[in-house]
Amino acid sequence: MLNLWFTEEWTPECRFSIKIKEHFHTEKSPFQQLDFFDSYEFGKFFTLDGIMMANEKDEFVYHDMISHVALATNPNIKKVLVIGGGDGGTVREITRYSHIEKIDMVEIDERVVRLCQKYLVQTSCKLEDPRVNLYFQDGLKFVEDAKEKSYDLILVDSTDPIGPGEGLFTKKFYTNCFRALSEDGILINQHESPYFDKEAGQMKRAHKRIKDLFPISKVYQFHIPTYPSGHWLFGFASKKYDPIADHKPEEWEKFGLKTKYYNSEIHKASFALPTFVKEMLEESE
Amino acid sequence: MLNLWFTEEWTPECRFSIKIKEHFHTEKSPFQQLDFFDSYEFGKFFTLDGIMMANEKDEFVYHDMISHVALATNPNIKKVLVIGGGDGGTVREITRYSHIEKIDMVEIDERVVRLCQKYLVQTSCKLEDPRVNLYFQDGLKFVEDAKEKSYDLILVDSTDPIGPGEGLFTKKFYTNCFRALSEDGILINQHESPYFDKEAGQMKRAHKRIKDLFPISKVYQFHIPTYPSGHWLFGFASKKYDPIADHKPEEWEKFGLKTKYYNSEIHKASFALPTFVKEMLEESE
Repeated sequence: MLNLWFTEEWTPECRFSIKIKEHFHTEKSPFQQLDFFDSYEFGKFFTLDGIMMANEKDEFVYHDMISHVALATNPNIKKVLVIGGGDGGTVREITRYSHIEKIDMVEIDERVVRLCQKYLVQTSCKLEDPRVNLYFQDGLKFVEDAKEKSYDLILVDSTDPIGPGEGLFTKKFYTNCFRALSEDGILINQHESPYFDKEAGQMKRAHKRIKDLFPISKVYQFHIPTYPSGHWLFGFASKKYDPIADHKPEEWEKFGLKTKYYNSEIHKASFALPTFVKEMLEESE
Repeated sequence: MLNLWFTEEWTPECRFSIKIKEHFHTEKSPFQQLDFFDSYEFGKFFTLDGIMMANEKDEFVYHDMISHVALATNPNIKKVLVIGGGDGGTVREITRYSHIEKIDMVEIDERVVRLCQKYLVQTSCKLEDPRVNLYFQDGLKFVEDAKEKSYDLILVDSTDPIGPGEGLFTKKFYTNCFRALSEDGILINQHESPYFDKEAGQMKRAHKRIKDLFPISKVYQFHIPTYPSGHWLFGFASKKYDPIADHKPEEWEKFGLKTKYYNSEIHKASFALPTFVKEMLEESE
């Protein structure tokens, strides 16, 4: 039997490997290398420049946690901007809220979107929703051009700050996000992992830049085993609402959404961070 | 340069690998295969039958979480039994409480203890504390012979339920723990991981057995990247105290212990479980 393994170097001295059933698509887009696989343990998944993006086994964790925390803090969010998110999973979760009026999704690489629509139908299944507008542009440029206060929520569903995702971790980008957000706007963004040095450094830099701009800036964590260390963070930045003080579990539960990771206790709990993570975030101040 | 890797099969289709500086000790004891390594990313670590037990980078997570949750629920714990825990890390944490009177540690394999004392001095550094009594015996037999109500806290710091650790996941063992615990006694035990099928099955079985015996039976989670999936659980079973309702953060903080993972917010938060984990635990009822 074919003994084929995909390996990701979490660090040069630590590797995570997945046995592959089939490597069924590979191509280079103008932006990056795209590869699609079927695997025994994680189902179908894809990588960008060799880095795991989403797999059928645990994408629910990431997409639950990027979406529902903001909607349970401000259930009146109407206009949403998703930056990146080519696999469609974030839009899938956001379209579950029938009261949301507009979802703009800006993905630099159309090939990611098209290939996920073809091959990763578990995540990319709601891009045809009439509220969704797809833009194949640079997210950095898109928010620069966006009208002031045009979104209630911006979700930065980006790759790591290397390659095409790099601009989405800059002060300029966060400044434009702030400008494009309504007076009670919320920004959720990749905060990487606190465990390995490389991601921890990225996390600290991202956090400092956001903290300097937004009145409320917090960090929350979750378990996603296929990302380096399995210990992953998102940033929650906001002009008005605090994710704990303004958490509205009763209102969120009225939406009646069935979720596999997120729930109202996890919402609160995910903002409680281990001491070493709190210290890292304080160092970044 | 030597290109040497230690690999653990988290499942037959998923591997975690660590680059090794030196494989400096190997032996077979009457119970298992013991190997000690030095690594680039995780410092020194050891394996039993090829399974990662403890490494210098993240053992603090495991040892914080096995120890302090019980002491912050009942700060008057005086008599502690550690079953397993040959690396000494659990005893290290427990000896930090000066009011604790007695710590019995029962490890089936004396070689684990002796080699960790020699090679893993970061964890095995408090076994000489005068309150510590070492017993090289089968933990199953030890609790069977223990006098009724002789411990306020039992910490089951065991290997997985395969090999020498197997008996420490049986109904007979938990029944004897119950008998050996004082009227306000607490039992903390390995609950494995909810992520991969094998560990999830072990978790469900362990949970059902304990739930049938103890009036209070909860599960809490933490991030430990070098265990399969990085998403790990302990069980908290108790005759009297609930880890949330009876949590005493002010009393615990008076102990003045500096911890790198555990803190009073993490205490509460770690009992909030993702929906898929809650459902697994309910299935086991």
